[in-house]
Amino acid sequence: MRVLETVGGPADLKKLTAQELTDLATEIRDVLVETVSRTGGHLGPNLGMVEITLAMHRVFDSPHDRLVFDVGHQAYVHKLVTGRAPKFDTLRQQGGLSGYPSQAESEHDIIENSHASTALSYADGLAKAYRLRKEDRHVVALIGDGGLTGGMAWEALNNIAAAKDLKLIIIVNDNGRSYSDTVGGLATHLTSLRTNPRYEKVLDLIKKNLARTPYVGPPMYEVLHGVKKGLKDMLAPQGMFEDLGLKYVGPVAGHDREAMEDALRSAKAFGGPVIVHAVTQKGFGYAAAEQDEEDNFHQIRPVNKPRGWTDVFADEMIRIGHRRQDVVAITAAMLHPTGLAAFAAEFPDRIFDVGIAEQHAVTSAAGLALGGLHPVVGLYSTFLNRAFDQVLMDVALHKLGVTFVLDRAGITGDDGPSHNGMWDMSILQVVPGLRLAAPRDGKRLEELLNEAVEVSDAPTVLRFAKGEVFPDIDAIDRIGGLDVLKRSGSDVLLVGIGAMAATAMDVAGRLEAQGFGVTVVDPRWVKPVAPKLIELAGTVKLVVTIEDNGRAGGCGSMIAQALRDAAVKTPVRDFGIPQKFLDHAKRPAVLQEIGLTGQDLARDITELIAKHHGDAMSEPDRASGRPGSA
Amino acid sequence: MRVLETVGGPADLKKLTAQELTDLATEIRDVLVETVSRTGGHLGPNLGMVEITLAMHRVFDSPHDRLVFDVGHQAYVHKLVTGRAPKFDTLRQQGGLSGYPSQAESEHDIIENSHASTALSYADGLAKAYRLRKEDRHVVALIGDGGLTGGMAWEALNNIAAAKDLKLIIIVNDNGRSYSDTVGGLATHLTSLRTNPRYEKVLDLIKKNLARTPYVGPPMYEVLHGVKKGLKDMLAPQGMFEDLGLKYVGPVAGHDREAMEDALRSAKAFGGPVIVHAVTQKGFGYAAAEQDEEDNFHQIRPVNKPRGWTDVFADEMIRIGHRRQDVVAITAAMLHPTGLAAFAAEFPDRIFDVGIAEQHAVTSAAGLALGGLHPVVGLYSTFLNRAFDQVLMDVALHKLGVTFVLDRAGITGDDGPSHNGMWDMSILQVVPGLRLAAPRDGKRLEELLNEAVEVSDAPTVLRFAKGEVFPDIDAIDRIGGLDVLKRSGSDVLLVGIGAMAATAMDVAGRLEAQGFGVTVVDPRWVKPVAPKLIELAGTVKLVVTIEDNGRAGGCGSMIAQALRDAAVKTPVRDFGIPQKFLDHAKRPAVLQEIGLTGQDLARDITELIAKHHGDAMSEPDRASGRPGSA
Repeated sequence: MRVLETVGGPADLKKLTAQELTDLATEIRDVLVETVSRTGGHLGPNLGMVEITLAMHRVFDSPHDRLVFDVGHQAYVHKLVTGRAPKFDTLRQQGGLSGYPSQAESEHDIIENSHASTALSYADGLAKAYRLRKEDRHVVALIGDGGLTGGMAWEALNNIAAAKDLKLIIIVNDNGRSYSDTVGGLATHLTSLRTNPRYEKVLDLIKKNLARTPYVGPPMYEVLHGVKKGLKDMLAPQGMFEDLGLKYVGPVAGHDREAMEDALRSAKAFGGPVIVHAVTQKGFGYAAAEQDEEDNFHQIRPVNKPRGWTDVFADEMIRIGHRRQDVVAITAAMLHPTGLAAFAAEFPDRIFDVGIAEQHAVTSAAGLALGGLHPVVGLYSTFLNRAFDQVLMDVALHKLGVTFVLDRAGITGDDGPSHNGMWDMSILQVVPGLRLAAPRDGKRLEELLNEAVEVSDAPTVLRFAKGEVFPDIDAIDRIGGLDVLKRSGSDVLLVGIGAMAATAMDVAGRLEAQGFGVTVVDPRWVKPVAPKLIELAGTVKLVVTIEDNGRAGGCGSMIAQALRDAAVKTPVRDFGIPQKFLDHAKRPAVLQEIGLTGQDLARDITELIAKHHGDAMSEPDRASGRPGSA
Repeated sequence: MRVLETVGGPADLKKLTAQELTDLATEIRDVLVETVSRTGGHLGPNLGMVEITLAMHRVFDSPHDRLVFDVGHQAYVHKLVTGRAPKFDTLRQQGGLSGYPSQAESEHDIIENSHASTALSYADGLAKAYRLRKEDRHVVALIGDGGLTGGMAWEALNNIAAAKDLKLIIIVNDNGRSYSDTVGGLATHLTSLRTNPRYEKVLDLIKKNLARTPYVGPPMYEVLHGVKKGLKDMLAPQGMFEDLGLKYVGPVAGHDREAMEDALRSAKAFGGPVIVHAVTQKGFGYAAAEQDEEDNFHQIRPVNKPRGWTDVFADEMIRIGHRRQDVVAITAAMLHPTGLAAFAAEFPDRIFDVGIAEQHAVTSAAGLALGGLHPVVGLYSTFLNRAFDQVLMDVALHKLGVTFVLDRAGITGDDGPSHNGMWDMSILQVVPGLRLAAPRDGKRLEELLNEAVEVSDAPTVLRFAKGEVFPDIDAIDRIGGLDVLKRSGSDVLLVGIGAMAATAMDVAGRLEAQGFGVTVVDPRWVKPVAPKLIELAGTVKLVVTIEDNGRAGGCGSMIAQALRDAAVKTPVRDFGIPQKFLDHAKRPAVLQEIGLTGQDLARDITELIAKHHGDAMSEPDRASGRPGSA
């Protein structure tokens, strides 16, 4: 019988012998590799968290004590030891375990959000609540060295440090991989030193490693490791945290469970906020993941990758980069996922990776634009939310030519509600002067990216879906900036936005089969609403908009408003994502669930036409069985 | 002839003698006190910036070198010495000088945004652009110690520190007043020590000051002053910045122009990023402002203050605080402006001032809610933009009972485009589960605040205007949560939202005078749209919504969408703020300019009815001259 099978909850961990715990760590790593290879998900971060998680659960009493995991994608081990091992093979599957903590799954889970750098703020609030309520609980926040580069983590540290009596332990899981792969060897050696620093012995090891792996990352890493302050600080890099007034313990070998337990026990006994600095290796215990230079094991996708939207963007950026010396690129710790790694390789002095720091990414882009360059900021759609104010005030108010490229827009599915990119086309509608494009296919992505970088006096945004790029749909006409994709009549004008242009074509086919005349357009630039679209809407019997964005304040809503303003009375139906948090599932399953498939939409539209039949709409062409004549 | 009159631009400053510069400083302070007392605006911060600004312009060559002012409200002196002294009496007046830097006003101005903590990111981008373009310019960023508490400033520091060859000078204007008034005396003494630290002599001074003014602020201040690390560090508190890898100069006496010039010259010569730590006194040279305990001179309002929305909120919070022990309050460096100072005085252990850190404010509120409390977060409407992602993901996704109270919503006017609170009701519409209320008067503010703190499973938001609270408008009826304010017929349903309910009543009177029958409702809770409102809309001939929020994705847009979804065909006209950045002017002048007055709206609606006369609407009651019967 495997040890893991005996662990029904954290209490069971406390009964295990040292040997059983070691065996358990091995079993957990096996389960992680086996499961994630099949289901997809985050492998490297979780392999690095095995011993830390066991130590957390042995030293503290969850759920009485609160364990808060930043980002959440490193909580798989936590799931395995809190009663969810039997269901672990359902990870990230529809109806199965979430890839992030989930309050619905377990009383041991707290933060469901995958956006980084929030854990310290949550912990600050929790600990202050317990202090006020005089409840004797500890709050333990786990954050990565990458998460610490986010501004809100610093805001939290600044506040936590001022609250001397909070029972709050911050574990920094420092795997040194957020940015730079080159320091992994150094981290490994640091791991073996932890408790009782012997400087002389370490000196050689580190010198050797420094020589082999010259330091190139940003200063946060330097601070944590004290690299530039000399060897004494490297073994006790507490300067910065102590400046803030925070008690510091470390560095601790994050893969030495007993050392972690010792550190956590002394932190627990301290009675005030403490930082425990754990040095780990991402992918630890799985050679392929440990040596993974490009961080491919950070998140595993179980299939071979066909050409994706990201690839199209990556390639076009290179072409633009060669043509335009003033185009530079910015990424927020997403060099590979956004496809900007290729641009970085080609133009190493024109790429800026700012860390998990979307706010700074956007405003430093504003600075770059003020300095005469044209920055392209590559982000996931959902993470732009972090920098809404900066897009509005720092870029748009200043009329600066910055292009935002939002990958993973629309339904992303597997990673749950906080990864879906369903907010961007709504919140960006309020930004004066901003121009927003949603390419329907790879060819349009190339085309619109080139148009976007030509705009020098306003922000431009491109947003596209996750995954495989859609087959090109060529236009049969372009009028007033709109691509006309089909024109068989004027019963219905279908406005297919971005990825939903293909769906609109599907819907059109189904409506035509029923005898309706349909016009399908892709506005290409969805903000501002094109005058031609308003004009066209006035010539049809029904306008239908389809977008993979939240319906509230989305493109359909804006088109309806434009029609009201122009006194165009054609009825409008705006389809999009319902304004709710969507459970994780594959993108097609989610689209089906929310009724955004060709079949669902065609049915809804047919009903709508029938409803309008008796009143607002004149006798439809359908009655005569012939397609419309427009 | 005054020296100021001889200063047409920065070049003239370089020709002045030391005595003339001293005289100039005195003249500038006189102008500041005289003008701002009359026009309103920021006095204290600018009195503290006189010598720093002169030094900046003497050492650097603006606009070739770029001077970037964070927040911007401390740029008055900069305006006076860059050719705008003759127009300075038009400060903050319609058509006159902006209270913030303005690119339209001067080539010496860069950041127009009043939101804090952005300057370092701008500067980072600018300096990187010049490096890439091989332009030999210096970028100088001025940021307050308060601005440094904002997370994005830390994100920027983290990046700047990694760019060793940037010609970038950061001046920290440390007036120690962002939080705590008690340390001003210490700052004053530090000012006199700067260049040549003599520890023994300082020891007594500081000990005396520390004893007199016990330290109560957050740790950022400690870091800058090194208070807790002992005297050596107090005179050279470079620890934290040097940990980041930043060259540090200071502390420098910010009111000693020559010392500032020396420091800036050596920073300029260094050739890499440097922090110059200037210690100043807010309000320096004007006794009333220097000793201002409550920071009243931070921003001057030229009139006596009648009872405002803020006061109503402040008083009601005290009542709620007494009744509900679990209600706590959070503010982001806005204890007095948000009215939470009174709550803080009454319940000192239930108030959390987190610094200029809206992101942390929101997510730590999420933590407080998870810990069993009900936090009320007091913010200016426009600053909530900084924490949109946190409201969405950290509060709403987690179904937490946090109440956000947004002061200064709608048109604030004087402080220009970045202070207007015209975004909140649009971006919050996308947040699933969030409930949003816009009280029309003081009584409703009290009522809705009490309702909001009863909601424990979702975020609630109250938003209200700046300034004097409106006279109460009592409802004649309440149906399905809506307050019916008037019911004279069903030609037009006027939906008056928040502060615009009063305007809706004005419009109603004008329409009635023309013979129309009008129903006026205040939805009170504007999100979600009440079913009763949809039902009511189906019984009238025209629905008109009026809100002081951007039209894009605003309440009107959401009501129109709800009507489409419910197949209610009544035409809708949604009035609100046009989606553009509005120049500074008094609130009434802005409302007039954008047509949101009773007169304008009544005229527009009359035209609209006439337009619908012939087609969609049936024969209006107007034709018969009698009020409607509904």
